[in-house]
Amino acid sequence: MAENKKLVSEITPMDEDFAQWYTDIVKKAELIEYTSVKGCMVIRPYAYAIWENIQRILDGMFKATGHENVCMPMFIPESLLQKEKDHVEGFAPEVAWVTMGGSEKLEDRLCVRPTSETLFCEHYANIVHSYRDLPKLYNQWVSVVRWEKTTRPFLRSREFLWQEGHTIHATAEEAIEETERMLNVYAQFCEEALAMPVVKGRKTDSDKFAGAEATYAIEALMHDGKALQAGTSHYFGDGFAKAFDILYTNKENKQVYPHQTSWGVTTRLIGAIIMTHGDDSGLVLPPAVAPIQVVIVPAAQHKPGVLEKCSEVKDILSKQFRVKLDDSDNSAGWKFSEYEMKGVPVRVELGPRDIEAGQCVVVTRHNREKTFVKLDEIETVIAEKLREVHDGLYNKALENREKRTYACKSIDEINKALAENGDGFVKAMWCGDEACEDKVKELTGVGSRCIPFEQDNISDTCVCCGKPAKQMVYWGKAY
Amino acid sequence: MAENKKLVSEITPMDEDFAQWYTDIVKKAELIEYTSVKGCMVIRPYAYAIWENIQRILDGMFKATGHENVCMPMFIPESLLQKEKDHVEGFAPEVAWVTMGGSEKLEDRLCVRPTSETLFCEHYANIVHSYRDLPKLYNQWVSVVRWEKTTRPFLRSREFLWQEGHTIHATAEEAIEETERMLNVYAQFCEEALAMPVVKGRKTDSDKFAGAEATYAIEALMHDGKALQAGTSHYFGDGFAKAFDILYTNKENKQVYPHQTSWGVTTRLIGAIIMTHGDDSGLVLPPAVAPIQVVIVPAAQHKPGVLEKCSEVKDILSKQFRVKLDDSDNSAGWKFSEYEMKGVPVRVELGPRDIEAGQCVVVTRHNREKTFVKLDEIETVIAEKLREVHDGLYNKALENREKRTYACKSIDEINKALAENGDGFVKAMWCGDEACEDKVKELTGVGSRCIPFEQDNISDTCVCCGKPAKQMVYWGKAY
Repeated sequence: MAENKKLVSEITPMDEDFAQWYTDIVKKAELIEYTSVKGCMVIRPYAYAIWENIQRILDGMFKATGHENVCMPMFIPESLLQKEKDHVEGFAPEVAWVTMGGSEKLEDRLCVRPTSETLFCEHYANIVHSYRDLPKLYNQWVSVVRWEKTTRPFLRSREFLWQEGHTIHATAEEAIEETERMLNVYAQFCEEALAMPVVKGRKTDSDKFAGAEATYAIEALMHDGKALQAGTSHYFGDGFAKAFDILYTNKENKQVYPHQTSWGVTTRLIGAIIMTHGDDSGLVLPPAVAPIQVVIVPAAQHKPGVLEKCSEVKDILSKQFRVKLDDSDNSAGWKFSEYEMKGVPVRVELGPRDIEAGQCVVVTRHNREKTFVKLDEIETVIAEKLREVHDGLYNKALENREKRTYACKSIDEINKALAENGDGFVKAMWCGDEACEDKVKELTGVGSRCIPFEQDNISDTCVCCGKPAKQMVYWGKAY
Repeated sequence: MAENKKLVSEITPMDEDFAQWYTDIVKKAELIEYTSVKGCMVIRPYAYAIWENIQRILDGMFKATGHENVCMPMFIPESLLQKEKDHVEGFAPEVAWVTMGGSEKLEDRLCVRPTSETLFCEHYANIVHSYRDLPKLYNQWVSVVRWEKTTRPFLRSREFLWQEGHTIHATAEEAIEETERMLNVYAQFCEEALAMPVVKGRKTDSDKFAGAEATYAIEALMHDGKALQAGTSHYFGDGFAKAFDILYTNKENKQVYPHQTSWGVTTRLIGAIIMTHGDDSGLVLPPAVAPIQVVIVPAAQHKPGVLEKCSEVKDILSKQFRVKLDDSDNSAGWKFSEYEMKGVPVRVELGPRDIEAGQCVVVTRHNREKTFVKLDEIETVIAEKLREVHDGLYNKALENREKRTYACKSIDEINKALAENGDGFVKAMWCGDEACEDKVKELTGVGSRCIPFEQDNISDTCVCCGKPAKQMVYWGKAY
């Protein structure tokens, strides 16, 4: 027995060292493993299963809004990358270059895609000729590479998995509508599948995507009060179309430029889940994306009838839920810790005395609440419990955000709020001047996160220069 | 009306020029589009949807046999690739090398994975310590890069999509069993989902995967009589474990080497589907992987009630099948050609007179058979028709293979059979000597495809040297 007990070691408490807590979790919940490729990681089965659930749900939402999946090459010739000036300036410094194929030196270096606007544009130039060819609503699920200097699992790595939607439309209006539609899809997904409240807004010009006319984003607040950009949606106008000579014949038989968008979310969402819901016992997973939604842990499993009953319950629950029965010879206590570390939303405990009483114990991960449940009501109760976990996680995250959102009218107020209450979102007015944006960051440490669609009028003047304010901005420290 | 008619142009007849027929289909059925990255292609929505169906079915089969998905980095440091001697010799000549990250020159070049044995081995060395950690049954769905000189869409490209399974086991027996299990999974998938009969067998030593002890393969015969390797499964013994220092403590508390396998299929399967089932009107898709299983084409769709009835039928059929109703203003004739080109297995025609009679016309793509079907029996009949298409495709492919399989006792017989009947599988005995294998190819043009599990005793002597034969081999020209 002794040798089979792999101890779930302690993890660093989050209030002691949040960064170390995060690192402990990604290792001990077996989400990632480091490799000899600096800045790249193995996404282990448990984390990949979370990603598969994210993919499945989002892909369904994309298809329901009329999108089709495609797959572009992973390489972009340097000459193609250079066609759109802002875009190449934004990305060239952080790409990986393929210079040799076999033993042959390449004439035109190939970059490993950091994003695929240029490839989609080349393709659209080939296949879009008439207004009848529009819109094209394409998406791809691939990995991309950005040569980052400092990396952290899921949050910033040299290679990451993502989806990138790239669409092309007859008019600016349609393209803008698409940009907003996909931002809403992301927000809905984060709230309904990840139990993570988000702020929807527009990025300031200094924070736009390279080549975009406007970048929209959803911003979430992590447990430690730092902001995390969870998804972006870009409106390109006809800038890329002009750079790549994409022209179509409109209904009036004129050659005109179409309008484009792109939008993406990444494996970073797994980092967001960890930092939004996790606690000192490990991961806490929102039920919609949890690889295991219910774990059944037998008590005194060697006693006759216990494993049989557990199997029966598993079969019943498996019709609706993702269920694991752990009948290994590890102790029940070890199993409790293990599945708490793995963040399984609901645990079912079932032993000889429970069986006699025709019941089991159901424990919800986020609040450790225990309920005795009649076995013949188990399906209904588990469905309720999973909803409870989802709602509990969402409300806790929302409370954390509200507690950590500070409306401030001056630089002093910002500094005071952060010093007294810790990191969080600062809501403060802005004149729209980039110099003020920079100065706020310099004086307080928080940068602009987004100009939210839902505006509050905190005051009439810019928090920095005192001139008339144009908008309220969410400011924060960002992952 | 005129401008909306995109004409489905003629394609080259397959008997006139099979290679050109293939190229015409991949373009005109909108499967791929070329890019400025030589040897790489855009997999367009229709082809990608076929791949998604392949993925979904295979992934289900992998999970049902206990496998989990992971994701490794796309890069392999040169020093890691070099750890297994045969492996690096096999792959180094055809890999793409990343030598720069941003503006910084890399100390250790990174190759873009041509296959990921080395990465899985590094990972296994990190996570496998005890017999309790075994087996690990991992798979990943990714793309890989091989710097091929001549390329053809789906069949041979510099980047292709695939899955690669990598497993590690306590004993040789278990690993060999896994190798065979996955070959059987592939064969079952090809026959049941792709309607494509395959020969299961072992590769000769000269044709083994770089680093493998044994390579098993499934071989299919295309319409033109050329063979296509549709999937491979490799047994590695403990060779990689030794090269990568993977050791585990067995039940007797001794440090021993585990045994490994790998297995994969690629987007090449789409090429196999085209060349197995396609005809002079275009693609013909096996129902299990067809993105559209049933297309509904209205007749006289401007007449009152027609589109409504078509919609009704669509709603009924969509519960069970993947259905498209084409209510565009293209002519019915244009639509017939379009969906024949796209290989949609079943077409439903529905016009005012049909509606009056409470019926519709159902046409199966592979044999153009027309059936009048009562609308209230439509669900049952479509299910039957889809089975008919599957069986019809399978039987036709099997007939083609049987017609083109030649049992030969001498080099002369081989040359005669090929000259008289065209390319195909040659069944002939072999002494096991590599020199004879080479000589058969030199004298007849056909190389060894595999040593089939199902052996026939064509004669007692080697077809080449006349010495005692060890095995019967399938020989053929290969894609």
